[in-house]
Amino acid sequence: MDQFLINKDSAVPLYLQIYTQLRQAILQGVLPPGSRLPPTRRLAHQCGVARLTVTEAYSQLKAEGFITSRQGSGTYVSDSLPATAHIPRHLLPETQTPLSAWGERVMSTKPRVERPLSPRPPIDFGFGRAFHHIFPYDIWRKLLDRYLSTDDAMLSRYGSVAGFDPLREALAHYLGRLRGVVCRPDQVVIVSGAQQALDILARLLLEAGDEVLMETPGYVDAYAVFQAFGAQVAYLPVDNAGFPVESIPADSRARLLFVTPSNQFPKGGTMPLARRMALLQWAQNHGAFIVEDDYDGELRYDGRPLSALQGLDKNGRVIYLGTFSKVLFPALRLGYVVLPPELTEPFIQAKRLVDRGAPTLTQAAVSDFINESHFERHLRHLRAAYGKRREILVQALETYLPDIVQYSSTPAGLHVMLFLPPQVEETAVIHKAAQAGVGVYAGARYHLQQPAPPSILLGFSGLSEEDIEEGVRRLAGVLRGGGNSEG
Amino acid sequence: MDQFLINKDSAVPLYLQIYTQLRQAILQGVLPPGSRLPPTRRLAHQCGVARLTVTEAYSQLKAEGFITSRQGSGTYVSDSLPATAHIPRHLLPETQTPLSAWGERVMSTKPRVERPLSPRPPIDFGFGRAFHHIFPYDIWRKLLDRYLSTDDAMLSRYGSVAGFDPLREALAHYLGRLRGVVCRPDQVVIVSGAQQALDILARLLLEAGDEVLMETPGYVDAYAVFQAFGAQVAYLPVDNAGFPVESIPADSRARLLFVTPSNQFPKGGTMPLARRMALLQWAQNHGAFIVEDDYDGELRYDGRPLSALQGLDKNGRVIYLGTFSKVLFPALRLGYVVLPPELTEPFIQAKRLVDRGAPTLTQAAVSDFINESHFERHLRHLRAAYGKRREILVQALETYLPDIVQYSSTPAGLHVMLFLPPQVEETAVIHKAAQAGVGVYAGARYHLQQPAPPSILLGFSGLSEEDIEEGVRRLAGVLRGGGNSEG
Repeated sequence: MDQFLINKDSAVPLYLQIYTQLRQAILQGVLPPGSRLPPTRRLAHQCGVARLTVTEAYSQLKAEGFITSRQGSGTYVSDSLPATAHIPRHLLPETQTPLSAWGERVMSTKPRVERPLSPRPPIDFGFGRAFHHIFPYDIWRKLLDRYLSTDDAMLSRYGSVAGFDPLREALAHYLGRLRGVVCRPDQVVIVSGAQQALDILARLLLEAGDEVLMETPGYVDAYAVFQAFGAQVAYLPVDNAGFPVESIPADSRARLLFVTPSNQFPKGGTMPLARRMALLQWAQNHGAFIVEDDYDGELRYDGRPLSALQGLDKNGRVIYLGTFSKVLFPALRLGYVVLPPELTEPFIQAKRLVDRGAPTLTQAAVSDFINESHFERHLRHLRAAYGKRREILVQALETYLPDIVQYSSTPAGLHVMLFLPPQVEETAVIHKAAQAGVGVYAGARYHLQQPAPPSILLGFSGLSEEDIEEGVRRLAGVLRGGGNSEG
Repeated sequence: MDQFLINKDSAVPLYLQIYTQLRQAILQGVLPPGSRLPPTRRLAHQCGVARLTVTEAYSQLKAEGFITSRQGSGTYVSDSLPATAHIPRHLLPETQTPLSAWGERVMSTKPRVERPLSPRPPIDFGFGRAFHHIFPYDIWRKLLDRYLSTDDAMLSRYGSVAGFDPLREALAHYLGRLRGVVCRPDQVVIVSGAQQALDILARLLLEAGDEVLMETPGYVDAYAVFQAFGAQVAYLPVDNAGFPVESIPADSRARLLFVTPSNQFPKGGTMPLARRMALLQWAQNHGAFIVEDDYDGELRYDGRPLSALQGLDKNGRVIYLGTFSKVLFPALRLGYVVLPPELTEPFIQAKRLVDRGAPTLTQAAVSDFINESHFERHLRHLRAAYGKRREILVQALETYLPDIVQYSSTPAGLHVMLFLPPQVEETAVIHKAAQAGVGVYAGARYHLQQPAPPSILLGFSGLSEEDIEEGVRRLAGVLRGGGNSEG
């Protein structure tokens, strides 16, 4: 061991440098079992460090069992140290693939994830983004600070699995008043987002091979969850009034239906009352559960949001999902599920196993945010800001692309899905738009049927009003075959 | 409809009170399809509200499809409204139980959750709690505030699934330096706690029926995850040096081993090097993965913490779990997993499906907390405070119970597991201790073998030094048959 590399300028303590090198030498067999280590005094001299430094390195090696002292005769590499050699993979006994069937399916659904455009175009119609200038961060900061004090033991305990009780109460009250949801606080469970709720529900309610019924175009991340789970995913094309209940095949054995009645995702459109009632009746007759994803139910710009499907359900068939990603901010990772009474306890027990519950601090802050009227005020601001942006987008579409595209007229949500003329290739449009400095996003991945009608998504929630108009102007140039319309 | 209940003092807007009652009447058939609603002017007069209020209620009902206007002839309940009646359960066609096999198993593992003692005893040896006076909340608040500004768009986007990159880098560096973990930042994935990591790993690596090998006594929440998954859980009783690798049956077909080498949970004790090397060799020979739960590796009170098993692994068999619950605070809900390269991408894809990633703000704050040396300073304070408490607890045990109990001498962790004399009934001890104002916790639930040796757990991290000594004094009274030893 003459090859010690000691760097006195390193942030790594000297003892640790010596320890690491000795350990490495022992593990690699450079210092074989039974071999004697130099006395601490000599090694210290050799390395130019204090003797205490070497002693410290030896103590750590001793504590970990790499070396032993023999009374009066020095320090030796442990005799009992068995070697593990790195065995090249082809010499190993044939083992199974390390992934489960679920793992293999998870890997096979991977390509559906869209990569962001690079470089990010100056006018980016990316969606699902909050318009960050609107969120009242100063209020949020004050609400967090309230709980961040050493006098408060709340954070030093594990929280409740089902969620912070004041938040569950605030949500039950809010949802009843503004979304027409009928529930008690104990039916509300806080989750880390709609995605987690779907994953838990699939595991709780389905066996691999069971049928799930979805909308197309639809929420692909739900599709991915069900597909990875091994469910048989059937789907029905939506029209301008959402999920076509009357088209459910008579022989459907679906145990779970996933729908977005308030504002169909991503096409847009609201499910009328007759379809809602028929859907509830269908679920009741077939013993199926309906997952109602009310992902942006609050974001309706023509007056009051429509009530949720859940409120019409008298037989406990509807599971209601809500999220704060769209109305507070996405990085919050907080959502909620309202469960029929018979599923509440199983869901909570599953949540306990899956991650023990959501972070208390965030929940406490959201709870105060709702109870102290900040939430409804913020929603009003959001509706004004997003409603205006949607109007500008629609006006720009009317101005620059009056005949070329079709889209839902429902004044809601954070994006518009444009259906392009059938002969247009959507990837070419996306590519050319990017060259013109405009980011638009592929509709194909939201369609479960193939071939999908060409379509693109324009998210407007992250853009200024000027950029929306200018973006559509450039997009029109692209769609009219003008290619790069900059300048 | 003479029975309108209007409360002008309610926080619920008047239009909403009218809307809700009309909607209810329609849904219940009190107002059947085709029946005519009173003109707005008359209803307004009848209820003593402005006509606009009634108009608003009607508009909402119209938008939702409950009622329709016929030109010049008034407003009617929609004809097309299909009724869904509440059908009593016994009249329904026989349906399957709503829960999947997984759901049924989740419900059957439920009783293992321990209810807190009520009322909470004045001296409560509950464990897993942080001592909240130590955490530097003022620093934490400043770190959060840094990101809570409207100029920062970070929070308005969805974060990275694998975790906030600066945190992954900070952890790789920290773990390498202080826990002997050998990894690149891209092998580190942020999770919402060890529980979530275990759940994802079970799904990713196991098929129902596969064998998992655990320690007993052991981490019951891991046991619950594997059991709910449908795995065959085998276990080996630990001794004072952790998991007895040499006792693994020759015919074991375990695909996953769950171990706590740094400080066996909950018994205490450290796995010596020879066993560690033998365990790695075993996993390598059998193509199994080892989950190393380093839940409190930082909390060692006799000098430097021992290095992790992961750092000895040359063949990518070890999956390393860490958590901030013990060293920051439990309500944070943040942990991390260090994966062998071949499992990194599958784990990230699974995490994407399961909940899309951890909250960005918390991760950014933890990242700065580590990088700006607050973490190591905080760990020093924790070690001093907890080490002192453990010493006081051990001294009190020596003073008041010199011969009655046995426990691990490893100076680590946040609790001590006391093994009681074989004839003692642990539930009786817990009950009598509670009467004496002392909360101690059952060891039985941590033992997978039955009958389990009687034992209790004393967590010391949430108690003052005085309370620890006084608590043990009273417990001694209970164990010596003195019953209630207060006064």
